[in-house]
Parts: sequence; structure tokens; C-alpha cells
Amino acid sequence: MCPSCEPEPAANGNGHANGASNGTNGSSNGSNSHPGFTAVQTKSNPHPHRANPYQPVGDFLSNVSNFKIIESTLREGEQFANAFFDTEKKIEIAKALDDFGVDYIELTSPAASEQSRADCEAICKLGLKAKILTHIRCHMDDARIAVQTGVDGVDVVIGTSSYLMEHSHGKDMTYITNTAIEVINYVKSHNIEIRFSSEDSFRSNLVDLLSIYSTVDKIGVNRVGIADTVGCASPRQVYDLIRTLRGVVSCDIETHFHNDTGCAIANAYCALEAGATHIDTSVLGIGERNGITPLGGLMARMIVADRDYVMGKYKLHKLKDIEELVAQAVEVNIPFNNPVTGFCSFTHKSGVHAKAILNNPTTYEIINPADFGLSRYVHFASRITGWNAIKSRANQLGVEMTDEQYKECTAKIKLLADIRPITVDDTDSIIRDFQRNLKLGRDHTTRPE
Amino acid sequence: MCPSCEPEPAANGNGHANGASNGTNGSSNGSNSHPGFTAVQTKSNPHPHRANPYQPVGDFLSNVSNFKIIESTLREGEQFANAFFDTEKKIEIAKALDDFGVDYIELTSPAASEQSRADCEAICKLGLKAKILTHIRCHMDDARIAVQTGVDGVDVVIGTSSYLMEHSHGKDMTYITNTAIEVINYVKSHNIEIRFSSEDSFRSNLVDLLSIYSTVDKIGVNRVGIADTVGCASPRQVYDLIRTLRGVVSCDIETHFHNDTGCAIANAYCALEAGATHIDTSVLGIGERNGITPLGGLMARMIVADRDYVMGKYKLHKLKDIEELVAQAVEVNIPFNNPVTGFCSFTHKSGVHAKAILNNPTTYEIINPADFGLSRYVHFASRITGWNAIKSRANQLGVEMTDEQYKECTAKIKLLADIRPITVDDTDSIIRDFQRNLKLGRDHTTRPE
Repeated sequence: MCPSCEPEPAANGNGHANGASNGTNGSSNGSNSHPGFTAVQTKSNPHPHRANPYQPVGDFLSNVSNFKIIESTLREGEQFANAFFDTEKKIEIAKALDDFGVDYIELTSPAASEQSRADCEAICKLGLKAKILTHIRCHMDDARIAVQTGVDGVDVVIGTSSYLMEHSHGKDMTYITNTAIEVINYVKSHNIEIRFSSEDSFRSNLVDLLSIYSTVDKIGVNRVGIADTVGCASPRQVYDLIRTLRGVVSCDIETHFHNDTGCAIANAYCALEAGATHIDTSVLGIGERNGITPLGGLMARMIVADRDYVMGKYKLHKLKDIEELVAQAVEVNIPFNNPVTGFCSFTHKSGVHAKAILNNPTTYEIINPADFGLSRYVHFASRITGWNAIKSRANQLGVEMTDEQYKECTAKIKLLADIRPITVDDTDSIIRDFQRNLKLGRDHTTRPE
Repeated sequence: MCPSCEPEPAANGNGHANGASNGTNGSSNGSNSHPGFTAVQTKSNPHPHRANPYQPVGDFLSNVSNFKIIESTLREGEQFANAFFDTEKKIEIAKALDDFGVDYIELTSPAASEQSRADCEAICKLGLKAKILTHIRCHMDDARIAVQTGVDGVDVVIGTSSYLMEHSHGKDMTYITNTAIEVINYVKSHNIEIRFSSEDSFRSNLVDLLSIYSTVDKIGVNRVGIADTVGCASPRQVYDLIRTLRGVVSCDIETHFHNDTGCAIANAYCALEAGATHIDTSVLGIGERNGITPLGGLMARMIVADRDYVMGKYKLHKLKDIEELVAQAVEVNIPFNNPVTGFCSFTHKSGVHAKAILNNPTTYEIINPADFGLSRYVHFASRITGWNAIKSRANQLGVEMTDEQYKECTAKIKLLADIRPITVDDTDSIIRDFQRNLKLGRDHTTRPE
């Protein structure tokens, strides 16, 4: 019921370099600094050329194979607690995102501060392939500043939940609708793209939402936006709302998901299945609180759904560099469990997994690390290792034994690994000692030192 | 369309301590080590006693309000690249999870190594409230070892996808079914709970799956398991498969979701909506590759769905301690974007957000940090701050001015924040200088130094 990985490009051999770096904490082959890991070369072609019986069945609504990214590291990401981007850093990030292939780059409102306005103008002048957007409140003052900056489009937002109407801006739906119409007509008159979005859409009145979206669609907005501003929405709620909205408006549908309850990637996917066209992302998901749909996590989800589309459009091998650029700029570590680029995303440890991976990586990998310029690792220095992993390591060391001897040698390694964490060097020593003792005809049941 | 937070316990006041720690990188009030943050006390009761119009409508299938946790840090978590737990650490983690209130604790197979067996026996003897499970391959050798350890239940697993049948164990469905029946009957004869699970369920043949689950259900298995071993499943696929299975078996349904494509929390939620009863978790999600549904992330999702159930069952204020315990044991940092306990999960930065949060936190928070013993923060030292946040900070400092003066003072702060990252001390200095100049009758348009 799931797609497997697609065929490997022929030029790549099996595509899995031995000893290449794997994530920020990745180890090179046999390094002591990351004990117990080694990059592995697998016997068989892991991604054989054959039809995939598990390809999901799409329907007429789905944009899973035709989505666009609105990259908001320079807007939502600037609302991340640790973020301060000076002009130079903003330009560096914008260029990297453009090179990666995102469709739009969204910037902080030029009304936020004088430097925000100047930076917005500077990025508009770079001549990037990506369209440049800025994000403003639904207010003519902000709109007037925005259209002067040279942006390709303006993203307008206003809170529509009872919470925000009561405790934030204090306006009712009539005021919101009238202001929206004024702002939209003004921006359109400057031949600039315009999106109108509610804020906190999943706690807004459905009739209010559909009513205002229908209105702004009729006056010619380019996109409407659905925002889970507080991160409360569940995937099936997202599907239902977007599917309903898809029947109400004919314009594009942009979606924005916060990650407070851990569903931001899944919600983006379900939105696309229901007919949304654009997904807001940020690098590493940085944004207000614990952030939004991460660019890398979305790539992980979407490459599993349609590898051809994703590989044809985005430079996936640049993902790790972009994440490191932004992580350094906002002074955070790339999380150990980050999709794709986390240091252990492609590390296999248990004996059962290692054995299967050595036969064929598609057994326990839905993503081919080579697509992102990364390698897989087999961790063989632990008590849950198996003899197939040890045999593989022994062969890397040029040690050949019988299967029975590999099994005995593995038992020795597990015996030591039961007592303390062991390193690649420990394991290699045991393998070499075992073989030496065999050659010398010594008792091979001797305990490791 | 989303639940808001529930009423606050009366004894707690508004429940939001001023200056309490917020996550590992949390700052105390006004500390220079974490510039620009301060814990805030909000004016209004953020969680008023009123009916919630956004409560999702449950249906007869849903176990969102009646789920059980099988905590697998000591099994799946031991397969995490960095994990080595000695006996003492295992016992410490088991006790902490038991105290937290998880329903089951799952341990590494006693067949994995001699120490794994001894540790399993030791944990069974602790007399914990949680039931102790061990996880074994579908093989009589493993089953015989497992039933001798004193566990309350055995979790049996075998790969059923074509990938695993071909490249891992090499057995066909007839062999799998016959072995399953033998193992299940053997374990049941010892009056021990038994779960039978396929591995890589979402790449398995649906007819094979339903057929074997129907068979094992009839012979009296306690639970069947659905495992997304490679992390490929999407939320709607999960809902469909579990809902179908719910119509086929009458026993409990356990689910296990890997996080390779970032959907592990969302998939767990959709599984419960479709009638699953048990969710596998690990602390921080540690496991093979980048892991499974995290305990803390699941709590974040579920407290939004049914706060009473979650608060009544689990000691949420212990979550941070447990995460720190496990993070130290496996030598990783708690990710900056971790649900609930990430250092910025409850930090609000943009002017619009800060203003609304100061009025009522439910505007931009779907989770009450006090439920987890944590605090919210307002970050007011940046160029995207607003005058409401600065007014709030000024009032904390005992500085009273007119709204017009707060706005002018805010403009000065934004001017400096446009140039470089600023600290709480910078902001406080500007506020105090501004007031001093006002008192002295000086020109209050003077630039900050």
C-alpha cells in the first residue's frame, strides 16, 4: 500500500557510497568518534527497475503530484524565538532556497520595521527564479507599503476565529470582508499576485470562512489560504475542510500548518490530497513556538508519494547544506531525529534489520538516502546485532570464515556488548582475534578481554 | 473545529508561573543567557470555564478518548543508533515510565542476548503497575525463552510484506500462519497475554493480512498489531486499513508507526480514530533510524483531543524529566522543536501574537503549558515586536506611560533591533532611559545609544 523507491539512475551504480558522510553527526567508516557505525555497500541493486505494486491510487482532487512550495523561512522563520537575520544572511538564505527550487519565497512584512522594508526591496532586486512574496496584515497601510517594494505577490492575513476576533483585532466579519475587498482590489490594481488567508482557520466558523472565501474568489484573488495557526488540526479535519473549500472556490488553495501537536507534515500531505495547491514551509520548520511544516520533512513525505515529481523539481542534495545554513544562523542543532538529515535517519541496528538491509535496502528504507546525497549505515557493535552484520564487517576487513564461525564470533561480540557500549575498534579486534585464534588452532571459545 | 484548552484547576490561579523554567534552554526572567525572553503573567484567565464549541465529534469507532500506551523505549528505543542501557538505567527508565502512567512497558527480546534476558527478569520482579511485555520473533525458540522471564505478555512479530518475505526471513504466508498458531497457542497455555503483529503492514498484501489476523483472532490472541515498519504510511491510509481491520477482528488493535516521513504522531491519531486501541511510543521517539511515535508528541496530540482523559491518566508534569533522563542516557539533545518541551514551544514573538497572548493565551496556544508544569514566554526584544509586548514589559519594570509613549518607545527598540540581536537588558535600558528622559523633559526622539 506504499510506494517503494524508484529505480536508481544508471550512472550512480547502486548509489550508496561507502564511507560518505551521513548527517551532521555522521561518521566516516570505522571512525572512533562515532563508535559502532559503518557505511555499507549493499550486494544487490536496492532499487530494481520494476513496476511498483504499492503506488497509491490518486484521485481528481489530489495535488500530491503537482504541489508548490511557499518557503517562509524569511517570514515565519523570523518569528522563531532564536531568529535574527541580517540583510546578508537573508540574501544568502534566499539564494539557497531559490537554487533548491522552491516556487515562492515569503518575506517579513515591510511594515514590521524599516530594515524589513529595505531587505524586502533588496531581495526583490536579486532577480531570483522564485517569486517573492511578502506577508501583511489585512490593512491598507500595510498594503500600500508592500506594493512599493517590488514583490511579485502579497500574502494578506486576518484572524477569523472567535478567539482572535474577540482578543486580538476586535473586528467582526463584516469589517473583515470589507477590508479584504479593499486591500485585494488595491493590490490587484498594481498587477501583483494576491492571496487572502484566514488565521486560525480550524477554530473559525465554517460558514463565515466559506462565505468570505467565496467572496474574495469572485473578485479575483489568486489564492486563498487555510492556516492552522495554533497547530490544533488533525489530518482528517484538514482533508475535510480543504475538500469542502475546493468545491467553493476556483482559485488556488494555500495551506499553513503549525506543529504544536506534531501533525504539520501529515496535515500538509492530507491538504494536497484534498486539493490544496501550495504548502507553506520553513527550513527545519522554524517559526512561532515550535514552528511549521519543515521543508526537509515535506520532501521526505512527498518523495515517497511521487519521486519523479520531487526529483525533477528540487535539488534534494542541497537540503543538508540549507538546513545547516539556517541552523547556524539561528543557533540551533539539527535535531537527532530530523527527517532525512538527522544523524541516524538511515542507520540500521537490530540484527533482523541489518540482515535484510544487507540483502536489499528497500526492506527497511522507504527513502533512498542517495537521492539526498547521503549514505546508509549499519550499526553492528551492539548486543542486538546479528551474524549477518558481523559477516559483512568481517568481509570489509578481509576476514573470511564459515557461517558457523561468524555466528560464534558474533556471540563473543554480543557478550562484550552486554557489559558496556562497544566501538567499531572493539568489534574489529574481536573479529581479528577470533580469526587469529582459528588459524593458530586455539580454543575459539575464549572470552574476549 | 478544534477543542480549546479546558478550564484551569482553581487552586492554580491562572496557572502560569512567572519566571519558571521552560524547557532545557528555557530562561528565567530577565536572564542575560537567553536574551529577549521573559515569562509572562497574563491578565485574564486563559482557560475560562465555558463549554467548548470546537470539540470534535467522535464516532463509535474512535478510541481517541480511550487509548492505551505501549511504551517501547526499552525495546524499540534500544534499537536507536546511540542507545546502550545497562541494567540500572533500564530499571530507572522503567520506574519513571511506570510512575508517568503508561499502560505497558515493552522490553528487548530475551533471546537477543544473555543480559537482555537477565534485565527482562529483573524488570518483571520490580512489581510495577504497568504490564511488562517482551518483543520476540515469531519462532518457538524465542517464545520458550520469553515465557520463562515472568513477563505479563509477549509481542510476536513477523514480516509479511513481499520485501521482507523475499529478502529477510524467506518464509511464505502458509509457514507464517502455521508458526503463528503454534507460538500463540504455546504462549496462551502459559496464561500470558499475546499480541500477533505483521511487520511492514502497509506494504503487505491486504488479503494476506486480513486472513492471518482473522485466523489469530479466532484462536484467541489478545491484540493484533499493525506496524508501519518503514514509515511510509499516510494518515488516510492508516485510517482506511485500521477501519477495515476493525471490522474483521474483535480483539484489541495495537499500532506502531515509524517517523521516516514525519507522520508518526498523526498516524497514531488516525489509527485511534479508526478503532485502534493501543499506540506504541518511545521517549523522544527513539528507535531504528529516526524512530517512532514519541511519547511526548502523542501527549501533545491527545491532550488537545481529550484533556480530561489524558490529565486523569498520565503525570504530564513528569514528561520533561523523563525526556531528559532518556536524552542523557542516549547522549542526544532534546530537539529545539520538540513538542511541548522544546525550548520555544510556548514562546511568542511577533507583535500580533504577543498582543493577543497577553490578552488571552488561548488565542495562540492550543496546549496550556501549565498542564505540563511549564510556562509561556513572550519574546519582546526583536524588530517584529509590538507596543503591547513592550507595555507589558514596562509594567513588569514598574514603568507607567501613556499608550502613545509606549508606541514611541517601541519604535526606538525596533530601531536598535533592526541593527543587531538585542537582549532583555537592551530593551529594559531603552524603556528606562525613555522614561527618565520623559521625566527630565528631554527630547524623547533621541536615538538609543
